[in-house]
Amino acid sequence: MQAGKPVLYSYFRSSCSWRVRIALALKGIDFEMVPVNLIKDGGQQFSKDFQALNPMKQVPTLKIDGITIHQSLAIIEYLEETRPTPRLLPQDPKKRASVRMISDLIASGIQPLQNLSILKKVGEVSKDLREETKLTWAQNAITSGFNALEQILQSTAGKYCVGDEVTMADLCLVPQVANAERFKVDFTPYPTISCINKRLLALEAFQLSHPCQQPDTPTELRA
Amino acid sequence: MQAGKPVLYSYFRSSCSWRVRIALALKGIDFEMVPVNLIKDGGQQFSKDFQALNPMKQVPTLKIDGITIHQSLAIIEYLEETRPTPRLLPQDPKKRASVRMISDLIASGIQPLQNLSILKKVGEVSKDLREETKLTWAQNAITSGFNALEQILQSTAGKYCVGDEVTMADLCLVPQVANAERFKVDFTPYPTISCINKRLLALEAFQLSHPCQQPDTPTELRA
Repeated sequence: MQAGKPVLYSYFRSSCSWRVRIALALKGIDFEMVPVNLIKDGGQQFSKDFQALNPMKQVPTLKIDGITIHQSLAIIEYLEETRPTPRLLPQDPKKRASVRMISDLIASGIQPLQNLSILKKVGEVSKDLREETKLTWAQNAITSGFNALEQILQSTAGKYCVGDEVTMADLCLVPQVANAERFKVDFTPYPTISCINKRLLALEAFQLSHPCQQPDTPTELRA
Repeated sequence: MQAGKPVLYSYFRSSCSWRVRIALALKGIDFEMVPVNLIKDGGQQFSKDFQALNPMKQVPTLKIDGITIHQSLAIIEYLEETRPTPRLLPQDPKKRASVRMISDLIASGIQPLQNLSILKKVGEVSKDLREETKLTWAQNAITSGFNALEQILQSTAGKYCVGDEVTMADLCLVPQVANAERFKVDFTPYPTISCINKRLLALEAFQLSHPCQQPDTPTELRA
């Protein structure tokens, strides 16, 4: 690996990894990618080597500027502070608050309740191996968050989640919508979310970073 | 209510509300508090009035400078940008990344998996009304996060979570430790977490904002 190049530990389908891939693409940051398969071999994130790197056993993790950062929003905020162009947070503190509020709503209020590891635990605790139980759980977590988000976007959105510039909130929105689609969520109640998502998916950075375009994307899922 | 004074919607026991109460206390920001009882009347956060204010039906929510902000970390970042003294984020971007990484580890990786609303759902899905099932679930969520946190703190901590100044990470740590104690987590494996927590609890801002000192704290839980 070339010295000094950031290294991203990523899984093609991880929505948190996708957030960071979009940020890297938008800011034009060249990086190496190390795929971590969250399913194969019982989950490569549980390997000794990976645990030494990230004790939370999660992706994404970014090695950059001599440090190792976990947690997608912490990574994006660091990129924003050290590589500010193009900006992913508006200049106005009130608009920045809206961006962070929407990002946290998704990152703390939706994603953790419907990710792979929690659904496994839901299956265990319910002693119910039917995929439907997990699907319903995931759908409830997402619709509960999207009901709130759709309403919040009425007062913050322009072309994108907050005004007319792409922000960190958009980097959280698109991967969460992809999860919702995978879990067969009905989008009828979410016209604003759908419309913003469609606009964002037309942008090159969102396409290059898309789960169907990654080095570790299985052939059958490639676009 | 006095015009222009920030208004915090809070519940004495909510760990996310406590994070914001610490920030307000440290920065010496005068505010009005509106208690929202998450249990009484089936949960006052589900009232029409509160839903109109915060569609996520969660505390904390802060009305300040003519805007309404939800999500504790978004609120703290806004306070930091508009009322920078004393600072809750270090100046060095690498240290800021550590602070945000630890904050997000707790705010996205632990708290949402053990809060009141998820434990209710765990009870429903497991068709098991024993408190023990919920307790075990909460303990697992917390110990899994604390195992990682204890390791991460080895390389970031000084007197507090990151270096020797109180930061946003500490505002997340103390309320999460209180939750862990309530869920009877064994602290033997977490000497660093315990030690930092003890140091922080000695500070006035952490005491004033403590769940046992709030206007809505029930008499029997008052310190």
